[in-house]
Amino acid sequence: MNLAGDGRGADGGLACPVPLVHHDRILLGHGSGGRLTSDLVSRLFQPLLANPILLAGDDAAVVELPSSAAGMENIAISTDAHVVNPLFFPGGDIGRLSICGTVNDLAMVGAVPLWIAAAFILEEGFSTTDLERIVDSMRKAADEAGVTVVAGDTKEAEKGKVDGLYITTTGVGRIPRGRRARAAGVRPGDSVLLSGPLGDHGIAVLAARGNLAFSSAVRSDTAPLNGLVEAMYGASSEIHALRDPTRGGLAASLNELAGESRVSIVLEERRVPVRPAVEAACEMLGFDPLHVANEGKLIAFVPEAEAEAVLAVMRGTRYGEEACRIGRVEPDPPGQVVMETGIGGVRFVDAPSGELLPRIC
Amino acid sequence: MNLAGDGRGADGGLACPVPLVHHDRILLGHGSGGRLTSDLVSRLFQPLLANPILLAGDDAAVVELPSSAAGMENIAISTDAHVVNPLFFPGGDIGRLSICGTVNDLAMVGAVPLWIAAAFILEEGFSTTDLERIVDSMRKAADEAGVTVVAGDTKEAEKGKVDGLYITTTGVGRIPRGRRARAAGVRPGDSVLLSGPLGDHGIAVLAARGNLAFSSAVRSDTAPLNGLVEAMYGASSEIHALRDPTRGGLAASLNELAGESRVSIVLEERRVPVRPAVEAACEMLGFDPLHVANEGKLIAFVPEAEAEAVLAVMRGTRYGEEACRIGRVEPDPPGQVVMETGIGGVRFVDAPSGELLPRIC
Repeated sequence: MNLAGDGRGADGGLACPVPLVHHDRILLGHGSGGRLTSDLVSRLFQPLLANPILLAGDDAAVVELPSSAAGMENIAISTDAHVVNPLFFPGGDIGRLSICGTVNDLAMVGAVPLWIAAAFILEEGFSTTDLERIVDSMRKAADEAGVTVVAGDTKEAEKGKVDGLYITTTGVGRIPRGRRARAAGVRPGDSVLLSGPLGDHGIAVLAARGNLAFSSAVRSDTAPLNGLVEAMYGASSEIHALRDPTRGGLAASLNELAGESRVSIVLEERRVPVRPAVEAACEMLGFDPLHVANEGKLIAFVPEAEAEAVLAVMRGTRYGEEACRIGRVEPDPPGQVVMETGIGGVRFVDAPSGELLPRIC
Repeated sequence: MNLAGDGRGADGGLACPVPLVHHDRILLGHGSGGRLTSDLVSRLFQPLLANPILLAGDDAAVVELPSSAAGMENIAISTDAHVVNPLFFPGGDIGRLSICGTVNDLAMVGAVPLWIAAAFILEEGFSTTDLERIVDSMRKAADEAGVTVVAGDTKEAEKGKVDGLYITTTGVGRIPRGRRARAAGVRPGDSVLLSGPLGDHGIAVLAARGNLAFSSAVRSDTAPLNGLVEAMYGASSEIHALRDPTRGGLAASLNELAGESRVSIVLEERRVPVRPAVEAACEMLGFDPLHVANEGKLIAFVPEAEAEAVLAVMRGTRYGEEACRIGRVEPDPPGQVVMETGIGGVRFVDAPSGELLPRIC
């Protein structure tokens, strides 16, 4: 998630004109991926850094490279700082997460990820054995995604000024001509597709902290999704929007897209997949699975007529085996996300409003 | 400075084949920009992430974008994490530093910087007023450099897990055809040009810490150098190498270049400019000004015959007014940097070996 993607979605409109942030101190909830994050971005970062590219509201910036003979090449750029706690968790570690998170943000604008730059902030005293494990994990994830780590940087800070290490990854990719997936591209009549069950990453990381009276067999879903996206483009050129529901979960992503695209999104509760172990953990902890982070799932918006064809190719890929259709898009009211419950009711799906799970990615 | 640039220079050759790092814990000296940094990069990061682009040893990675009609476009990518302490110092702040540092790394491979991605790691409780000042400073520096902040990310960590805030900036630029400035490009017969006096940034930051019995009127030189580089290319297409001597100072940069290019660099002490206030501070603190960081200076290697023309245009720019020739390049012995002293002697110029000034950038 990024400054572009956070700023307008939850408000369902342009950056708020109020010049000052609500709070004069940063709160952990500012990192929730929900309304506080949105507020920080739309009220502080966007007015100061405003430009049309940053304001586009996508997971990656889309820029045009003046190409000497070919006109323009569309390039995607995305950056993510990773502060996950703990550094190692079932199904992944900060290294794999840092590669996959950035690869996925590029893929969500239809880009073919090519290059990664990685910057490490290391705590004095950090184990070089752990660092080797993490960098090796980055290399394996990069190999799996077909990207190359072309640039890097390391900085060190005194003991107690970093929690082990933080990794910022920035990715650059090329968008093949004709692809137009974007946050503002969702249209009435689209089907909402989801690549697999929700909440695995958030619950796996939380369980790995070990400071809650809670354990779980759930493994993080951290995975590169660019192969899945390429397969989907093989089945349809009409992919209107893609998003990986990370911080803030499916609820935050859908609210952003409904806002950017000025459409209404209707989910069908019985179709939204959540593993029993995740559901059980959420019930115990009082979480809504729709708010829990994923790191290896995507949602896609395609015309109803193409949904089955796209689902079929998704199910043929490693990370899309459990893909399903979870809802539809209607014209009104714009910016709204609702869920039809199993018993015939309808409930509003809001983005999380404050702190849910700090340092989940 | 980056994983590419750090790894081979101080060793004057390829990454050392010894598989393990010297130390099993990260030391502050691993961030010095000197031999310990070099060791960490060459023994841990490079073997795990090895690819020809990362190993090229430049301030920015140079990659080829397959352009649909035009053949290849050369793109530069560079990333830097900024952990400077304090966040505000005379002549700049972490915001200006984070933009200029990345703009300069791109310019040092001859690229025209275009886009910046910025990732913030914020400490719980950090002042949003300070954050606004810092982001505003980034915007002003970006405007001065002619770059656009197109992507961003914010993460939060608990109080005590970040020292205020850290900013990682990643830049992408386009390299006009025909430019070949690179760390391995220095040739015997080149003149060594320096854009202005050494050590202002390091001394200004150190004085601003206020925990040393030391104060100074020195201001950081933090500045974007891409305009200066464009002017230089207007005067000569034979710029063999460029480098901004940041962490580890001029000594670290020259040792890296002498190693990458397998040449000998000879400085003339009387020609190396250092402001009296910087010289005084260095004498008091026991520092060699050649080891102190700069954030608005560059060194350039051009054929002797072109040196005067390049110096003339440098002196016509805002950040090159005090440009001068400080030395020459000889063929042997490869990898060596020496300084002819005022009294007719010669001394070796080594990269700093351990901790000099932690958290200077």
